[in-house]
Amino acid sequence: MHDLIIIGSGPAGVSAALTAHARDLGFLWFGHADLSAKIEKAERIRNYPGLPDVTGQEMKESFLGQIEGIGLTLMPGQVTAIYPMGNYYAVSLGQEIHEARAILLATGMETSKAVPGETELLGKGVSYCATCDGFLYKQKNIAVACTSPKFEPEIEYLADIASQVTVFAAYKGCSIHRENTSVIQGYPTKVSGEGRVQAISHQGQEIPVEGVFFLKDSISPAVLLNGLQMEGAHIQVDRMQRTNLKGCFAAGDCTGRPYQYAKAVGEGNVALHSILEYLSSIQEAP
Amino acid sequence: MHDLIIIGSGPAGVSAALTAHARDLGFLWFGHADLSAKIEKAERIRNYPGLPDVTGQEMKESFLGQIEGIGLTLMPGQVTAIYPMGNYYAVSLGQEIHEARAILLATGMETSKAVPGETELLGKGVSYCATCDGFLYKQKNIAVACTSPKFEPEIEYLADIASQVTVFAAYKGCSIHRENTSVIQGYPTKVSGEGRVQAISHQGQEIPVEGVFFLKDSISPAVLLNGLQMEGAHIQVDRMQRTNLKGCFAAGDCTGRPYQYAKAVGEGNVALHSILEYLSSIQEAP
Repeated sequence: MHDLIIIGSGPAGVSAALTAHARDLGFLWFGHADLSAKIEKAERIRNYPGLPDVTGQEMKESFLGQIEGIGLTLMPGQVTAIYPMGNYYAVSLGQEIHEARAILLATGMETSKAVPGETELLGKGVSYCATCDGFLYKQKNIAVACTSPKFEPEIEYLADIASQVTVFAAYKGCSIHRENTSVIQGYPTKVSGEGRVQAISHQGQEIPVEGVFFLKDSISPAVLLNGLQMEGAHIQVDRMQRTNLKGCFAAGDCTGRPYQYAKAVGEGNVALHSILEYLSSIQEAP
Repeated sequence: MHDLIIIGSGPAGVSAALTAHARDLGFLWFGHADLSAKIEKAERIRNYPGLPDVTGQEMKESFLGQIEGIGLTLMPGQVTAIYPMGNYYAVSLGQEIHEARAILLATGMETSKAVPGETELLGKGVSYCATCDGFLYKQKNIAVACTSPKFEPEIEYLADIASQVTVFAAYKGCSIHRENTSVIQGYPTKVSGEGRVQAISHQGQEIPVEGVFFLKDSISPAVLLNGLQMEGAHIQVDRMQRTNLKGCFAAGDCTGRPYQYAKAVGEGNVALHSILEYLSSIQEAP
C-alpha cells in the first residue's frame, strides 16, 4: 500500500511529485513520458517565473531534466479506472492494480468529451481498455473510437479477437487495413442501448455493435472515479485542493480556469501539502 | 488612473507582474529591489518546477533577470495605507498617492504582529511613516519601534523634529546615538491611551509618549486596508483570489499556508486572471 498515487504529468503533477519527493513520501506517479501533450505544443510561455520566454518544448525539457536529476520515476500508462475502497483507493491501469491511501488527480483538461451514452453504458459494453476487456468480445461485432494513431496497436489487438471492427478515427491517416475492419473518418456522436450497448451512431446513421472501445488520451475524471463531484467539466475543489471524496485531491487544468502553467504548479504544491496533512490525520486515528 | 497596483515583490507579485505585462495591462508595481527578504534567505529550494535545487539567492537572480529582461519596472517603496474610494483605490506611500481600479496584495506573511493598541490607535498617535507624520511631533516626546537598521535614517529624521525619542531596536547594533534619543534593546509590548496615544509599554514598564512610529518591513494588510476580511493572520480569499472587497485581490503567503514559492506563483497568476475579468466587468458596466 502506497501513501499516494499521482495521476498525470503536466505541471501540476510535476510540482506535486517534486514536493512529494522532497518530503520523502512513498508514492507512485503515472503519466506520459513526454509529460503533457499540451506543454509540448505550447508555442511560447512568457509568464512563468524562473523560465523566461521559453517554448513548451524547452519547459518540458527543463521539467524532465529536473525529474531525472533527482531520480524520480514517472511510470507511463493510462489509468482506466479508480475505485474508492473505504479508507484507500485502487487505481487500475488496464489489468494492473495499485493501491494508495490518497490519490491526486492531475489529469489535465479532457479534450474529447464523453458522447451521450458513453458514461451511462461504461462497463455495459463501453470500455476504455482493450487489454482488460478485449477478450469479452471474441467473435463479436464492435466499434472503436480512437483519437490518436498511438492507439492503433490496441485496435489491431481488438481486430484479432472480434469478428468485425468499425474504427472511428478522429485523426488523419489511420493505418488500419484488415479484412474485418472498416475505418470511418470522424468521431461517433452517440452510444445507445437498453442496459447494454446495442448501437453506435455517426452522421445520423446507427451501426449495430455489441461493444464500443474509446481509446483516447484523457478520460473524464468523473468517469474514472464514480461519485466525484464536478462543476461542469471541472473537478470541484476547495482552496486546499480537496475534492468531495476523502483522500482524493485534484490540481491543475482539471480543476478549472485559468489554464496556466503557474496555476497548475501552485495547485500541485498546495495539493501535496494537503495530502501530507491528510495522511498524518489518518495515521493518528485509532 | 491605473488599471492595477501590485503591492509586493515576492514570488506572487513577480508571477502577477509577468502575467500583467504579458496581457498589456497598465499597472504600477511596488516592492523591494531585492524582491523579498524571505526568498533571499532561503537556503535551498528543491521543489520549484523549472529551477532545480536552487538557493534563494539563485531564485532571486533568476526572477530579477526575467523582470529586467522584459523591462518591467519594480518601484521601491513601502505602502503605508490603502483607501477604498468606491470604484477605485488610493494607495499611499508616505506622502505619495497612486490610484488604480484594482489592487493586488502580495505582501507576504508579516513577521512582526501588531502589538495591542497599535491597530486601534493608528492615526491617533500611531504611525508607520516618519516622512508623512513626523512633522506632527515637533518638540514632542515619542517612541519608535524599529525592526531593521535600514530604517535608522528615518529615526534620525524623527530625532531632528521631536524633543525626545525612545527607540526600541528589535535587532542588534543599533547605531543611533543622539542626545535626545535613548535606545532600548527589544520590542514594545503595548501601546495605550484613551482616544490618543499616551504611553508605550516594555517589560512591565510604561513610558509616557505622545506618538509611536512602527518602522517595519511588513504592515498587517488589515491595518493597511480598513475593512479587509481576515482569517486569523491571513487575508480571506476565494479560489479566484478575491477578497471581501470589490476590486481587491490577494495572493501568496498573505493568504495562508503552505508558505511555498510554487503556491505563491500560482496564486499570483490566478489573481491576475481574476483581475482581468474584474476590469473587463467594470468597463462593461454603464
